[in-house]
Amino acid sequence: MDIRHQHPNLGEWIELIDDAMTDPSSEPILNLVDDGSEVEYDAIFIGGGAGGRFGAAYMKAMGGRPLIIDAWPFLGGSCPHQACVPHHLFSEAAEELDRMRWFSDELFFPKFDADRARILDLINLFRAGRGSAHAFMNWQTKEQLDVEYVLNAHATIVDATTVTAAGRTFKARNLVLGMGARPVWPDIPGLDLAGVHDFVTLVEELDYEPKTCVIIGGSKVAMEYGAFFHATGCTTTIVSRSPLMRTKSLHHIDEDLRQYVVGGMRKRGMTILEGTHPVQVNGEDGHVTSVTVRLETGEEVDLPTDFVFLGTGERPLVQQAQEALGIQVNDVGRVVVNHRMQSSVPGVYAIGDMIDGPMEMFKARKSGVTAARNIMGEDLEFDFTEYPDSLHTTYEVSWVGLTEAEAREVYDDVIIIQMPPTVKDLDTENLPLPCAEGTMLYAFSKPELSGFQKLVVDGDSRKVLGAHHVGYGAKDAFQYLDYLIHRPEGLTIDTLGWMNELFLNPEHFVQLSRLRAGNANLRNL
Amino acid sequence: MDIRHQHPNLGEWIELIDDAMTDPSSEPILNLVDDGSEVEYDAIFIGGGAGGRFGAAYMKAMGGRPLIIDAWPFLGGSCPHQACVPHHLFSEAAEELDRMRWFSDELFFPKFDADRARILDLINLFRAGRGSAHAFMNWQTKEQLDVEYVLNAHATIVDATTVTAAGRTFKARNLVLGMGARPVWPDIPGLDLAGVHDFVTLVEELDYEPKTCVIIGGSKVAMEYGAFFHATGCTTTIVSRSPLMRTKSLHHIDEDLRQYVVGGMRKRGMTILEGTHPVQVNGEDGHVTSVTVRLETGEEVDLPTDFVFLGTGERPLVQQAQEALGIQVNDVGRVVVNHRMQSSVPGVYAIGDMIDGPMEMFKARKSGVTAARNIMGEDLEFDFTEYPDSLHTTYEVSWVGLTEAEAREVYDDVIIIQMPPTVKDLDTENLPLPCAEGTMLYAFSKPELSGFQKLVVDGDSRKVLGAHHVGYGAKDAFQYLDYLIHRPEGLTIDTLGWMNELFLNPEHFVQLSRLRAGNANLRNL
Repeated sequence: MDIRHQHPNLGEWIELIDDAMTDPSSEPILNLVDDGSEVEYDAIFIGGGAGGRFGAAYMKAMGGRPLIIDAWPFLGGSCPHQACVPHHLFSEAAEELDRMRWFSDELFFPKFDADRARILDLINLFRAGRGSAHAFMNWQTKEQLDVEYVLNAHATIVDATTVTAAGRTFKARNLVLGMGARPVWPDIPGLDLAGVHDFVTLVEELDYEPKTCVIIGGSKVAMEYGAFFHATGCTTTIVSRSPLMRTKSLHHIDEDLRQYVVGGMRKRGMTILEGTHPVQVNGEDGHVTSVTVRLETGEEVDLPTDFVFLGTGERPLVQQAQEALGIQVNDVGRVVVNHRMQSSVPGVYAIGDMIDGPMEMFKARKSGVTAARNIMGEDLEFDFTEYPDSLHTTYEVSWVGLTEAEAREVYDDVIIIQMPPTVKDLDTENLPLPCAEGTMLYAFSKPELSGFQKLVVDGDSRKVLGAHHVGYGAKDAFQYLDYLIHRPEGLTIDTLGWMNELFLNPEHFVQLSRLRAGNANLRNL
Repeated sequence: MDIRHQHPNLGEWIELIDDAMTDPSSEPILNLVDDGSEVEYDAIFIGGGAGGRFGAAYMKAMGGRPLIIDAWPFLGGSCPHQACVPHHLFSEAAEELDRMRWFSDELFFPKFDADRARILDLINLFRAGRGSAHAFMNWQTKEQLDVEYVLNAHATIVDATTVTAAGRTFKARNLVLGMGARPVWPDIPGLDLAGVHDFVTLVEELDYEPKTCVIIGGSKVAMEYGAFFHATGCTTTIVSRSPLMRTKSLHHIDEDLRQYVVGGMRKRGMTILEGTHPVQVNGEDGHVTSVTVRLETGEEVDLPTDFVFLGTGERPLVQQAQEALGIQVNDVGRVVVNHRMQSSVPGVYAIGDMIDGPMEMFKARKSGVTAARNIMGEDLEFDFTEYPDSLHTTYEVSWVGLTEAEAREVYDDVIIIQMPPTVKDLDTENLPLPCAEGTMLYAFSKPELSGFQKLVVDGDSRKVLGAHHVGYGAKDAFQYLDYLIHRPEGLTIDTLGWMNELFLNPEHFVQLSRLRAGNANLRNL
């Protein structure tokens, strides 16, 4: 259907998308200026997820002519449909449930009713509501960003300048591949049993309330979903080959932060089996009943469970690009690109989860923009070696820059400013600091739960090297800390300590720095 | 008692402080290097609140010799004892109670039990726990910051270089006055009735559970405590002469933000009477029973209530400094100082709530440091004309820089980037954006509650002029936004849009900027 001259509002878009999702024979949604046959686009973005949508919007804003084609009837990709958005909803529920459990029958909190906390209810809430975000993306991309698109239509790559979709042929100077990634399932017997899920099938297919969960894998997804399942009362075991937060995909994990986070998961009753290999998933009547694992000791044990969740990573959807274009892919299945997002095929770019680096939103969006700006003639490189990072357990965990150990390898005079301080016999378990928004009730009732923070500083240059935080409400600040510490002049403890803090700031870095900035020779705090 | 050679841990400090607070004849606590008779300190900080403690710590770090004297047996001042810390605890409770009410009997939230939510319980929680923060301040100031102090002793100013306390005479090159402020009570009949409180007497004296509350005044304190009382189920009316958030003490309040915040309070059932004057407080058997107010229309009405809370501002404790030193004070009772915190009396500085400007933590701490650095010979000015600000209702509200209206007065091409967008017929009431940590459940269930955000940009220079946010988790970012937009080169939408966001970032400024940064001529979003 041609919606170029229609202007659906959010409610109308929701209906349109819903119809397309439920009717397999639904038509493509065409938002095109003309019939397309005579046009040469500056770029066709195959995939309208975060990377494609931001890239196309930037190109259009620069005066270029982009086209987005997506198989789904909505823009935004997997994030608002199956990935980051449900994860955020579930993590918020986990945080809330965690607080309600700790405070059960204390203060204004009623006795915690574990029967009310159901994974399925949250999944249903997400399923019922995700259409709004989809609708907004379609609306915004059309009405505010003025970008042409074809949705609900599979794109077929003919060559590096030709794509067919919705029965039409589209030509472009460049292709930008942003088809995303899908969870990868390990090679373990028994994964075909009912009750085995990844984060996609979880939101699409789960139809019973699990009582226990075994998570295979130690990724962010494993930790985040595991913390959620456990918070609902679904007793959760994580089976991970590597120690949690020591996987290749996460860098700059400070050991003290790691211990607070993983220790916090254990404190809440989760079982975390590190150095443990999954052997097979066992079932009865077609449904999972247990997972056999080999412990670090070599011993094999059976973990009874009615639910298995796979957190073993994702792999990009590169097959079509390999077959149609012969594009170069590395040994982990990611498209090889340079810092301009140019692939091995001239005129073909790849972005987002198709390429190396963290499968994170900033990289998706900025790689799309990088492709667009280079196509439009700008000479721009995007290096995502360094970036701020975060994950959820029932906490919000954020970090950027060097860990204490990394800093000590490089710098002679590493200064640590942290809260609570590491001081013998001080009784820091009962210290309510750090505290701020979201940890005040903990601080006054259960101070050992109120978080952890650490700033790593080079004593010679006085520059901040890294920042690490467990708590709530600091994540947003880490975007700016990332910018500040990675700009050429860096961020000295003097500049940081002279900022205007908003008391009670969740990370206390400004005022803690100020308590030491007067020292010509910096000291730990 | 002389504790110079003792090293109490937190538990021991709590006991020490508690004994001093409960026994009026308790001895002063002396943490002095020598007996003091031969010493000339670089400065005596009278008052060991935020300003005095940070100023003294900075001076000591620079190699100076400061002494703090405080009448309380703990450092940190009123903030952790009666002011900002309990306010933060109560505001977190308000946020939690608000969520529990909206979701009553939905999802994992049980039916809301209003009988459980008691102001008194939270006050008791605070009273029982505040000793830990006091203890930490005393411990840190002694053991980590190495600052000398005399606590639990009234300081008497003899002259600009002489102070007596604890039966001793102390000499110093300079005095730094940081005695703080106390709530000021308006001139209305009936305030002597039981049941009339300010934020100090609330935490010190409240001994019954109020059913209804009338708040006199429209200050931040009025809004913050009012939102808390109401969230507990204590039906609350705010009586304010000025429209809320249009008082002199708050600047840069964007009208759209104001409407979201005040509208949100009304949506939750609070009564807000603007343009209304309190006439008198009425009582029976010595206890308040109602407040007579004169409405904007001139009509006088009686508001029945069993609790009156005064949010009519604070006034510095300047009397001793005026009498002993003849120090100059302005028409609102604040000590007159220059940007070096120097008062009209040579060698005498004033800091924190003693001087003009916002009674906020950043100003207290940094004014103390400014005094210290000037005393130590640095040429440093502290200008607190511009700063980030925040307040709580059941939301966290943050803002910095110009409002849209202020920007339009000065700039020709003001660009507004906001979420939700103001678009006719879009049905933004059902738009779940903005959403992020803390608003995900709202976004999926009650999207009109999920917040508001606005960025104000100068289209010509492309610089961010102001940022405004209602939601959760963004406050910490505003410290850095304040620094970035007020540094000489400012913060362009291009630099902001190229930062590495941490999805879902509570304020969406990075990615929203990126959607427009490609435009040579910026447009609204």
